[in-house]
Amino acid sequence: MNLAPHIDKIIGFRVAGIHAGLKVDGALDLALIVSDRPCATACVFTQNQMLGAPVIVTRRHWQKNPQTIRGVVINTKIANAATGEQGIEDACSMARATAERLNCQPEQVLVMSTGVIGAHLPMPKILAGIQNAHAQLRPDQWAQTADAIRTTDTRPKLVSKTVYTSDGHYTIAGIAKGSGMIAPNMATMLSIIVTDAQLSHSNLQTCLDAVNRHSFNCIVVDGDTSPNDMVVLMANGASGVAIRTDSDLEQFQRALLEVAQYLAQAIVRDGEGVSKFITLRVIGAQSQDQAHIIAHTIATSPLVKTAFAGGDANWGRIIAAAGRAPTHFNPDIAHLWIATGETTLTDVPSGLQIFERGMPAIYQEEDAAQIMRQPAITVTLDCGMGQAQATVWTCDLTHDYISINADYRT
Amino acid sequence: MNLAPHIDKIIGFRVAGIHAGLKVDGALDLALIVSDRPCATACVFTQNQMLGAPVIVTRRHWQKNPQTIRGVVINTKIANAATGEQGIEDACSMARATAERLNCQPEQVLVMSTGVIGAHLPMPKILAGIQNAHAQLRPDQWAQTADAIRTTDTRPKLVSKTVYTSDGHYTIAGIAKGSGMIAPNMATMLSIIVTDAQLSHSNLQTCLDAVNRHSFNCIVVDGDTSPNDMVVLMANGASGVAIRTDSDLEQFQRALLEVAQYLAQAIVRDGEGVSKFITLRVIGAQSQDQAHIIAHTIATSPLVKTAFAGGDANWGRIIAAAGRAPTHFNPDIAHLWIATGETTLTDVPSGLQIFERGMPAIYQEEDAAQIMRQPAITVTLDCGMGQAQATVWTCDLTHDYISINADYRT
Repeated sequence: MNLAPHIDKIIGFRVAGIHAGLKVDGALDLALIVSDRPCATACVFTQNQMLGAPVIVTRRHWQKNPQTIRGVVINTKIANAATGEQGIEDACSMARATAERLNCQPEQVLVMSTGVIGAHLPMPKILAGIQNAHAQLRPDQWAQTADAIRTTDTRPKLVSKTVYTSDGHYTIAGIAKGSGMIAPNMATMLSIIVTDAQLSHSNLQTCLDAVNRHSFNCIVVDGDTSPNDMVVLMANGASGVAIRTDSDLEQFQRALLEVAQYLAQAIVRDGEGVSKFITLRVIGAQSQDQAHIIAHTIATSPLVKTAFAGGDANWGRIIAAAGRAPTHFNPDIAHLWIATGETTLTDVPSGLQIFERGMPAIYQEEDAAQIMRQPAITVTLDCGMGQAQATVWTCDLTHDYISINADYRT
Repeated sequence: MNLAPHIDKIIGFRVAGIHAGLKVDGALDLALIVSDRPCATACVFTQNQMLGAPVIVTRRHWQKNPQTIRGVVINTKIANAATGEQGIEDACSMARATAERLNCQPEQVLVMSTGVIGAHLPMPKILAGIQNAHAQLRPDQWAQTADAIRTTDTRPKLVSKTVYTSDGHYTIAGIAKGSGMIAPNMATMLSIIVTDAQLSHSNLQTCLDAVNRHSFNCIVVDGDTSPNDMVVLMANGASGVAIRTDSDLEQFQRALLEVAQYLAQAIVRDGEGVSKFITLRVIGAQSQDQAHIIAHTIATSPLVKTAFAGGDANWGRIIAAAGRAPTHFNPDIAHLWIATGETTLTDVPSGLQIFERGMPAIYQEEDAAQIMRQPAITVTLDCGMGQAQATVWTCDLTHDYISINADYRT
């Protein structure tokens, strides 16, 4: 994949990441992402029925201005969730303060917050921070910006990809944060992706919905979801490259998928307490939905996740988890393989077969143990029922996850 | 509850728990439970689509002889699951060897196994063990029998209750095992409940189905289910007390519920790595199913369970888990309380309110911390939507759970 782990070529966006006084250790905690011109914008929001105030306000602003969004303001440390009317008012104030600086309507600004649930934002610090961040907006501050949206993440997550077409080139760039689906008391997964290509809002949304299903919706750290999860995709057209034909769109969507998968996987790699990165492929299903449900059930099983932590090729737990998935699964026609590394998407199983049609396969325990000791492992489950498949990226469940989440406030 | 943590009054059953050489440390590992006369019998089986051979064979035998079951043979250490045709044949052999000793048909004997998945039973040891156990059958060996069905359980689980009626008295007695929904590589939750009351098979099944919904189906250790889970209820009528009228049945079912809840809760109390016993009550739901779904989603959330381990009154995680339950839930009309101890079933919330209509309630953090330090905690979530309720018993997720499950074979 022709991806760069930095962002430097995108046109017409300026960004800043600053310390606004929310984090006690002086770390960056407030970010602005601004487009010089109005952006067509696509969004996906958390499916959780508990919605943080920034989700409510952002959805409202975006629905009003899907073609003319100018920027996003993000704070960490406090999620502004479970904060009632005051929370809504605070999120609106963040948009208003940003809009004043940008000379646009408050409804052209989106708001994201991540951090502790149930606390109110310290608005004087936030408003001063917005002013400060605006003064520091520059095209080359993406690393600081990605840094400023972190909570328990151990490292910033950013990526870009430039696509060359017959009309010129455009870039897609993105940042993300998140390290538990809910991190300790935090409300959690955020990603902002921007492009200088020119697309309609509806094409953008179609691409984001499709890509989201194969990227952010395919990662599991702990199976919990947050009230604040959001992905925003903004296109400002500054490259002069217009995405119009089906083949343009297909190329754009493919590039967007690479960017989104990189960021989604980066979240799992940096998951709380993670020691192993697991690519879990379910093939031979009757439908993609069925494959996804089985993969998700396996990926959320505490017993499967602890087996990976312990380096145990415990196929019994994987098959038993598939067996309790809320969809059809028959172990007597299933096969299971494990392999070292991250196998790219394909319907060909590879590695060591450890389960075959309802019974353990014949293999050496030491060969399995060898694979299970690796930091990256691919598991392939063939359901033997059809041609559909799905991939989920997940991680193990370790002592460190317990420490991070049990001992957070004590 | 008029329950005895031992079994001594039940008539017409003889039992044995012996060492058959399956466990390397000489611990008891094979049990027989035998009725002097044929029993009406009710069963519930795992919903997992991966079925162990004993589940397949027991279901077949029971469906043929629901009124004339004579006994159950149980081994630990090896689950006889994912063992193909050989596994079925081995389970049948266990029934046949037991039946020969009891002078009955093999189809009048039920079989249970619990332990490692994917290994074959050492049949010579098992068959010699059945012979040995048969020779030791006595009415007063229930403690040994409960001991012999353990895997990672740290203690045996047994209970009895005697019910006095105008026609005399009868006793309901039960044993159970299980400490993860799947324990380390084990296949898991088993319970055998016997009574000397006289009931039809269909009345017995109706009672067991109803009771199971409010006992074994209401516990969560880790959310995983096993291929071998089974509950068997046998009635031999030896007390001479016949359960015929609706009021008799109601009394019987109430007593059975007490026995089943005691055993189910004993499994949670002895859950892998457990340090806290949580009674989770969801009230104010639109239906009992809805209440159960919300309670189950909260009880399986790793973030909720780690918060309990850490003694953190983290209402944000509880509400966020409810918010992702696959049913309707609205935080803006919900209330949440925590209390010390095990609150009995009632629709009156008690304790300290920590969440109120979408926002944190006003309370002292130290008061909440005080409650969260206790070994038994009741959490009450009022959904504010209706009158239905459900209770789930669960536990925290600790370092010890990770150690038990990650480090099992390494």
